[in-house]
Amino acid sequence: MTSDKLIHARNFSHLFSDEARRRKPSPIKTTMAYFQDPEVVFLGAGMPPSEIFPLKAMSIEVPRPPFVGGLARCEDTMVGTLSREQKDLTFDKDVPLARALQYGNSRGQSELLNFLKEHTRLFHHIPYKDWDIITTTGSTQSWDASLRIFCNKGDTVLLEEYTYSSSVEAAEAQGLNCVPMAMDDEGIIPEKLENLLENWTGVYPGTPMPKLLYTIPTGQNPTGCTLSDNRKPYIYSLAQKYDMIIIEDEPYYFLQMDPYCPQDQREAATNAEAKSNEAFIRSLSRSFLELDIDGRVVRLDSVSKTFAPGCRLGWIVGSRHLLDTYWNLHEVSIQSTCGFAQSIISGILNRWGQCGYVDWLKGLRQEYTLKRNWCLDHCHKYLPSKVVTVPPVSAGMFFMLHVDASKHPEFQTTFQGNKALLERYIYEKCVAAGVLLACGSWFKVKSPTSGVEKVNDNTTMSFRGTYASVPPDAMVKGLSILGETLKKEFKLI
Amino acid sequence: MTSDKLIHARNFSHLFSDEARRRKPSPIKTTMAYFQDPEVVFLGAGMPPSEIFPLKAMSIEVPRPPFVGGLARCEDTMVGTLSREQKDLTFDKDVPLARALQYGNSRGQSELLNFLKEHTRLFHHIPYKDWDIITTTGSTQSWDASLRIFCNKGDTVLLEEYTYSSSVEAAEAQGLNCVPMAMDDEGIIPEKLENLLENWTGVYPGTPMPKLLYTIPTGQNPTGCTLSDNRKPYIYSLAQKYDMIIIEDEPYYFLQMDPYCPQDQREAATNAEAKSNEAFIRSLSRSFLELDIDGRVVRLDSVSKTFAPGCRLGWIVGSRHLLDTYWNLHEVSIQSTCGFAQSIISGILNRWGQCGYVDWLKGLRQEYTLKRNWCLDHCHKYLPSKVVTVPPVSAGMFFMLHVDASKHPEFQTTFQGNKALLERYIYEKCVAAGVLLACGSWFKVKSPTSGVEKVNDNTTMSFRGTYASVPPDAMVKGLSILGETLKKEFKLI
Repeated sequence: MTSDKLIHARNFSHLFSDEARRRKPSPIKTTMAYFQDPEVVFLGAGMPPSEIFPLKAMSIEVPRPPFVGGLARCEDTMVGTLSREQKDLTFDKDVPLARALQYGNSRGQSELLNFLKEHTRLFHHIPYKDWDIITTTGSTQSWDASLRIFCNKGDTVLLEEYTYSSSVEAAEAQGLNCVPMAMDDEGIIPEKLENLLENWTGVYPGTPMPKLLYTIPTGQNPTGCTLSDNRKPYIYSLAQKYDMIIIEDEPYYFLQMDPYCPQDQREAATNAEAKSNEAFIRSLSRSFLELDIDGRVVRLDSVSKTFAPGCRLGWIVGSRHLLDTYWNLHEVSIQSTCGFAQSIISGILNRWGQCGYVDWLKGLRQEYTLKRNWCLDHCHKYLPSKVVTVPPVSAGMFFMLHVDASKHPEFQTTFQGNKALLERYIYEKCVAAGVLLACGSWFKVKSPTSGVEKVNDNTTMSFRGTYASVPPDAMVKGLSILGETLKKEFKLI
Repeated sequence: MTSDKLIHARNFSHLFSDEARRRKPSPIKTTMAYFQDPEVVFLGAGMPPSEIFPLKAMSIEVPRPPFVGGLARCEDTMVGTLSREQKDLTFDKDVPLARALQYGNSRGQSELLNFLKEHTRLFHHIPYKDWDIITTTGSTQSWDASLRIFCNKGDTVLLEEYTYSSSVEAAEAQGLNCVPMAMDDEGIIPEKLENLLENWTGVYPGTPMPKLLYTIPTGQNPTGCTLSDNRKPYIYSLAQKYDMIIIEDEPYYFLQMDPYCPQDQREAATNAEAKSNEAFIRSLSRSFLELDIDGRVVRLDSVSKTFAPGCRLGWIVGSRHLLDTYWNLHEVSIQSTCGFAQSIISGILNRWGQCGYVDWLKGLRQEYTLKRNWCLDHCHKYLPSKVVTVPPVSAGMFFMLHVDASKHPEFQTTFQGNKALLERYIYEKCVAAGVLLACGSWFKVKSPTSGVEKVNDNTTMSFRGTYASVPPDAMVKGLSILGETLKKEFKLI
């Protein structure tokens, strides 16, 4: 990392897909250089007249920082008016609606981008100079775009052994090979990854070496585990050695919590609120961005978990050279992020300021810490520890239950030693009893070599639960039903 | 067309791309059947808690119907408050923000979809029963999705000879063959299209027969022409005979105007405002949807030109069977249309009601008629009719100037009979003089057979202008500069 920031990102166009390479600069777009040039009457682009956009003004009522006493109980609000015209702005950092709702600015509105850049600088020290940000319609779209930009049919993508099922579905539908990376409670195991890459042709004969390494480092979906900071330099060096792009998908980054400790050893309240902003920032995981001396990391960020998923507003941090390619794709697909979302989110963030937003994120940490504690406390209370293990979660929205299938009395008989059958059976028994958790196998990345399981083939079956939006009484009821069902099925009562 | 609507759409899955075929139903999505089931504690999906979404409420100030005296001068407004919780709604058809901003409903919010369905029924009589609507992030994304759903690399798409350049760029980047359809002032020429399809292997040896027929029927970009209703049944029958999907991209549908007549023969005002809603609806072009007894038409609609482009809210009308495939793609790409856009647009439309929205659309017709008249009046005033032809435009945002290159004194000498060179030269002369129009060649679809121009190879060069957002005095100035430049370059002064 250099303090004078003189390093430039490397060029990775050799990794682009044929589709990305075929995208040529469009002549019509070159005319935009003359848009708003006072010397030229611009009859070049078909923009509807903004004076008849039907929105005269909008106002938003939002919580006012500091968010004392927790986000859910925050009664103090502020009202901001978003005006259509620049001259009528009530707040000088607002995006005027006439601009937010017009064509153009497909990278994002400058008022929003400037805030997000400053926010990024606060949390990550990127070692190269020419990094940038582009807005997206959320990280699912950012991932889809990443696949279109880097991968041709038949190319290979590495993903954590258990991962977000939609990420796998998107890649598989595009005809890509999805290869699992072995992981444990601290995420991807670098030694095993290195071993895999070194012996690639032996393990996956005929499958190309991977172009992308996709990871959800923090509060991973579905496992809830967080990739240890200690492992990241090793993994980054493997990406360098094997010339891969790292896609760092971080929707849960700001759902990092205080470590879990059992109820009787816990302080009365979490101490997150009391932490200074600096201490809060230091307490968070370090990003691959910070290790990225090459410019090969693409970070996917989003307000889906910090604000709300329906905003459909995400952003990508990466080298300008890579982001230009996303821009070219966006111009012929999503065009831009919704102008309402941009002006509203920008309106909130700029009114709060960086400090206010950090205060919001600290409040979020507190909310999720309480939710996670409540959930794990009741897991320990209700679930039979003889057959169930509950790893202590420290980030994200999910917890995972590992159940030892071999302890089921009929595992070898009725279920013929097939843990997938037993998992499905237990899932259905739980739903019938009144609680639904997702099956772990739904998130398992299948090896491209059919029939051969390369990683972690044991008798542990898993279930994913969430505590994010579950009311406390429902959580108690759900975990109690789950405990009863497991005890009954495993003949523990 | 049947009045009892018993016909069902046919199944077109044989036309799906490999990518669309590979998309499997996801097990995690099956759990959503239990979401909000009172009998089941749902720990299945990771939804953030809506009680801490930072929006307490929003209010929007919009024009109030009827829009007397024109949209731009409409001073009477109404304010609507969009509440977070269902129980606090001030208007019972609003989408509560807690739902609009949550995951789920990736087809679109029901309050919006219901309005759009009723709107669709008002304007189109679809002959089959099982049609539906899905929201998108605008028609550019709808087109991108259509290509992903129907086309494999190497497949063929038919487009109008001149068309929206981004539509071609999207298809070409995906490795598709773009084949131009000959057109005149009334759009696609069906006889020429039939001739092309009958002699396909002779004309384009080695190029697969087309899967998609893409058309911008109304106020076409860039030509401004509108496909004659009389030609549509012929074109539809060709789509049937050659088993193609018709993609009907209709962003300018509601920018249809009263026919142009020269200033001195014109009534004092347009009569659109005076027309009844029924007469207005009857005055519009008929859609391919209305001819669609098979369910092979996919109509792309959008509020980009009726409200504002930055809404990034469009929708697709088509058979439910086809739209399910778009839904599957959306779930791993855009997820859904922005919740702010959906609740705001739904809030406006449902407050106005169908009648109010039709009144808005009639107002839009009036605004564009005035803009078009002003533009064409000044074309006739300033442009040298010896070398320039200006077709009378009756829909959309664009006008086209056809300039006879052969009348340029140096066409055969300095420009060696190459109209592309002269077009570029005139373009640059105009920009230097202070007016910018787009070159017609930028919108020309190149035949996949390299070097051979199959259609319309003559000495006409064209320029595309817009009147949509150009203030009256700028239009006068721009066209006057254009006229002077052409006269000077063609030695007419």
